[in-house]
Amino acid sequence: MKLYDCATAPSPRRVRIFLAEKGVSVDTVQVDLRNNEQFTPAFRAINPDCTVPALVLDDGTVIADAVAICHYIEELHPDPPLIGSTPQERAVVTALNRQIERDGFFAAMDAFRNAAKGLKGRALPGRHDYEQISELAERGRSRVEHFFRDMDARLADREYVAGSRYTIADISTMVLTDFAGWAKLKVPDECANLRRWHASVSARPSANA
Amino acid sequence: MKLYDCATAPSPRRVRIFLAEKGVSVDTVQVDLRNNEQFTPAFRAINPDCTVPALVLDDGTVIADAVAICHYIEELHPDPPLIGSTPQERAVVTALNRQIERDGFFAAMDAFRNAAKGLKGRALPGRHDYEQISELAERGRSRVEHFFRDMDARLADREYVAGSRYTIADISTMVLTDFAGWAKLKVPDECANLRRWHASVSARPSANA
Repeated sequence: MKLYDCATAPSPRRVRIFLAEKGVSVDTVQVDLRNNEQFTPAFRAINPDCTVPALVLDDGTVIADAVAICHYIEELHPDPPLIGSTPQERAVVTALNRQIERDGFFAAMDAFRNAAKGLKGRALPGRHDYEQISELAERGRSRVEHFFRDMDARLADREYVAGSRYTIADISTMVLTDFAGWAKLKVPDECANLRRWHASVSARPSANA
Repeated sequence: MKLYDCATAPSPRRVRIFLAEKGVSVDTVQVDLRNNEQFTPAFRAINPDCTVPALVLDDGTVIADAVAICHYIEELHPDPPLIGSTPQERAVVTALNRQIERDGFFAAMDAFRNAAKGLKGRALPGRHDYEQISELAERGRSRVEHFFRDMDARLADREYVAGSRYTIADISTMVLTDFAGWAKLKVPDECANLRRWHASVSARPSANA
């Protein structure tokens, strides 16, 4: 299989970290998002959604979503579990990860994409063009701040986001926290639990993947 | 287990249809969203996110997300498969379902929640309050129209959204299509494939769940 990737983008970074934690190596192809390679006919033929990551399997099947790719890798390589070892663990972590995407990842995306000069007319990923909405950038900033404080409270009595075990929820939270920095959104100084956690997960070798 | 539900809301409807297709019955508790029961201390103790659906397992564990609940039910009751029978099938359907949420479900939510008079100050679900953004309601309408046309093209050569098999992707698309009607967004007359598909999935007994 082959992973269509972009070394500088947050969504494929989630998959690269997931693979690194699993100790699985996959051939990658870089897609140059800054020069709009995702809109070329050659890439549209692979993923009509014009996004990365996209994992192409040996039979040509394409899995065009970061979280779906992680679930697939988890099924093929269950150890160490990064989602869960039982239906119940998987469900709890999946629900938590989706809440983190809604409140954190998509909020950081709103904050960045609705304000970045280079993304005028491209406020959303995908095949359609939408204009930036400045109020949405502002709302994204406010949501990320709420997210940081909520996550800080959550981490008061947990080593990792889901509890005592490192999971995909840590990967999502670390990647969105770093991505929020692109919009100059930093973890507040008083969020000591979140800062402790961020230093810890960032020290894992996978964080450089 | 016990499902915290709201008979009139789109997110828990996805779970009810999923359960009906599986032939699984679960005790439900109605949460009165119109009278803000989700913000009461009693419900916050169950789901601090203040959303439904939430599935409470016999050991007290809470799964507080519609799609995570569906994945859990699929694992406990694999037949008929509504996500997939193999890792590859599950990954492809999961990726498609997430794209449908992004382009359709969340777009319809933007269109409705940023314009409904009863939701002033509550433009997003979850524990925090955000003001409505009228430009976001307009963008949501435009996105849902794109979604309808893209889905119509997709259904030109497929019986169901994911192919020849009814899946969670059909459930999401049907629920969001009906929900979009709340914002007076209708499937365009010329989208004959989407109309044919919508009539077919709406005729299944599960659609009334």
